[in-house]
Amino acid sequence: MDASGIQTKILPEKDGNPVVYGEVKAKDAAKTLLIYGHYDVQPPEPLEEWVSGPFEARVQGKKIIARGAADSKNNVVSFIKAAESYLKTSGKPPLNLKFIVEGEEEIGSPHLPRFIKENKERLKADSVVCYDGDFDETGRAKISLGVKGLLYVELRCKKARDDLHSSYAPLVPNAAWRLVWALNTMKSPDDKILIRGWYDDVEAFTPAQSRLVGKIPFRGENYLKEWGIKKFLKANNNREALKRYLMEPTCTICGFKTGYIGPGSKTVLPGSAMMKIDFRLVYNQNPRKQLQLLKEHLHTHGFDDIQVKPLGFLEPSRTSPSAPISKAAVRASRIAYGSTPVILPRNPASGPDYLFTKRLGLDSIWTGSGPPSAYSHAHAPNEYTTTEDFILGVKYITAIIDSYAKVA
Amino acid sequence: MDASGIQTKILPEKDGNPVVYGEVKAKDAAKTLLIYGHYDVQPPEPLEEWVSGPFEARVQGKKIIARGAADSKNNVVSFIKAAESYLKTSGKPPLNLKFIVEGEEEIGSPHLPRFIKENKERLKADSVVCYDGDFDETGRAKISLGVKGLLYVELRCKKARDDLHSSYAPLVPNAAWRLVWALNTMKSPDDKILIRGWYDDVEAFTPAQSRLVGKIPFRGENYLKEWGIKKFLKANNNREALKRYLMEPTCTICGFKTGYIGPGSKTVLPGSAMMKIDFRLVYNQNPRKQLQLLKEHLHTHGFDDIQVKPLGFLEPSRTSPSAPISKAAVRASRIAYGSTPVILPRNPASGPDYLFTKRLGLDSIWTGSGPPSAYSHAHAPNEYTTTEDFILGVKYITAIIDSYAKVA
Repeated sequence: MDASGIQTKILPEKDGNPVVYGEVKAKDAAKTLLIYGHYDVQPPEPLEEWVSGPFEARVQGKKIIARGAADSKNNVVSFIKAAESYLKTSGKPPLNLKFIVEGEEEIGSPHLPRFIKENKERLKADSVVCYDGDFDETGRAKISLGVKGLLYVELRCKKARDDLHSSYAPLVPNAAWRLVWALNTMKSPDDKILIRGWYDDVEAFTPAQSRLVGKIPFRGENYLKEWGIKKFLKANNNREALKRYLMEPTCTICGFKTGYIGPGSKTVLPGSAMMKIDFRLVYNQNPRKQLQLLKEHLHTHGFDDIQVKPLGFLEPSRTSPSAPISKAAVRASRIAYGSTPVILPRNPASGPDYLFTKRLGLDSIWTGSGPPSAYSHAHAPNEYTTTEDFILGVKYITAIIDSYAKVA
Repeated sequence: MDASGIQTKILPEKDGNPVVYGEVKAKDAAKTLLIYGHYDVQPPEPLEEWVSGPFEARVQGKKIIARGAADSKNNVVSFIKAAESYLKTSGKPPLNLKFIVEGEEEIGSPHLPRFIKENKERLKADSVVCYDGDFDETGRAKISLGVKGLLYVELRCKKARDDLHSSYAPLVPNAAWRLVWALNTMKSPDDKILIRGWYDDVEAFTPAQSRLVGKIPFRGENYLKEWGIKKFLKANNNREALKRYLMEPTCTICGFKTGYIGPGSKTVLPGSAMMKIDFRLVYNQNPRKQLQLLKEHLHTHGFDDIQVKPLGFLEPSRTSPSAPISKAAVRASRIAYGSTPVILPRNPASGPDYLFTKRLGLDSIWTGSGPPSAYSHAHAPNEYTTTEDFILGVKYITAIIDSYAKVA
């Protein structure tokens, strides 16, 4: 950012990764656009499945293969290059630009709420672009007017002091079985979350949001092929799948570890077991309230021997389809890509968007460059972007800035 | 064995570890005692919990700390030294001795059935001692007149080709959830196995066996303290606990691995999940039949997407309390240790004892030297025996041979 001419500061964050902050002032505009990104990535494991080192950035044809290539280094470098392009051509951007690039998005932005609270004055702006998105699977830009929320927890159970010989199974409670039985009370095989009150705060889409859903192209067969599965979960056609994708709160086992997990057999009774769950939340569920519901549920079902450790809270968010920044992004997509973007009333992924919509009270959109994350292996081995997607991504964010300067 | 003067052969086993076979002929006795042991050990993981290297054989005071120290290297070396003691003193043992030491006991002796079948002539004997036991927790020798059986399986589920971003959870079946839901149909939180027909072949103890149960000292509080738990599973007192320990078939999650299991959070939807289960079986359940029941159960409950890979089969066994070898061992315990042994009509652990009782049609007992496995960390980090237990163990097996030569 510094090298590109952006006035840059590294703002240390107590107990967390620093936020990189930048500013580029317009010549005489009063309007300010805040652009958000993140520099952190997901853990690279399992390492053995990468065709090259996760941090090697191997170029294979048009592909750039590396952890974070798609989520979200291509986006971050794009908005830096957009700012640089103004400074090197017209001299100044058409409105004031502010950038924050955080380092904890992938773990649920635990310190960003405090940062936002403590930097309200510094972050004063008119709208926000979270440039941390991907493409729609049809190859068009995707603009999200809100995101799902997230509650990420680790559940642990400890029984015997150590792993024991499994012949003691009639005598000793098994920590792994305890977690399995607890899980089973939390979600039924038909994918319904059974935690009491879980769906209470779910709000249906507004008519305007529902109209947007009707316009979303969803070529389900592409996903199915990419993922190697035969049919979607609980959906008989693409339309049903899309609705589930956007509207359904989820409860996902992200990891489970207990006992002996090497090759062959070991007759062991695990003394402890650990698992990770992520709950995606929809408007207007609150992750802290949902955590309380989870804890009450475990208590009610007799699982006081299971410890719940929350690892991430993100509230869901939403922005109106008629907001100026929403309109500017639609126009920018036509300019940069020559195509109408796909507009999601809600992105099924999560991010700290609520800090901009709910805490700063601003309109905020979430968008970014290609490829679609369904193909880019985001969060998985062999994540990639392409040189073409990167270059067009620079044009797109530049066009958003230009278009937003013209609206309102 | 060779160095001790036992006529020794290494008998290669196709696809498996060789069996070490040995013979020492008596001067003029016709009676033959077959002694069984094993040289393999359990995997040493988790390595970080060992106070010294698992194969270092660290001596700390009277403790010898090493993987296999208690299960079962002290026993194997004891019977070798017993044979050597005859050869170096009286010149010949009082009856013919045959030894087989296998290398696959800890993985369920997969190739021993074929070995036994193909070596019936070579293994001709009058009785068998499986010298692979431990002490009773009261510090007395333990003689088991039979063992539980074992069925060990690995369950695998594969859904999406790779681990995916967890935002796809409304669309993609989660392999980990599939295993959890399947598990839940297999055992209820009150520890009852729910697989149809699972208990059908369970035979109650005979009156003679029940009388033995009544004589077993069981100081449950020692176990509880060692294991760091407050009370036994589904037992209100020591007597109930002992009965469960001896009589209950079990279904134990030995290991579960899926998704991201490192520190912190990773929002991932696992494409595959793997778990290991051991089922301890009681007389006269047959592991191959029980495997069939498990497969039928999974099919009936709609879990055809779960692959069942059997990794071990051991049938349960039993020998009469009035068999000559049973009586000889009781006498030997008084000679070597000066105390009455604890006689278990059934050992809650498993071994290939059925090959001797059912396939060769012989009486067979299972016994060995101290310490009790409840304290020795058998199958777990910091497994140990003591120098004292080892030396007395040599005397004990020598006394068994002597006593058996005198009975019948």
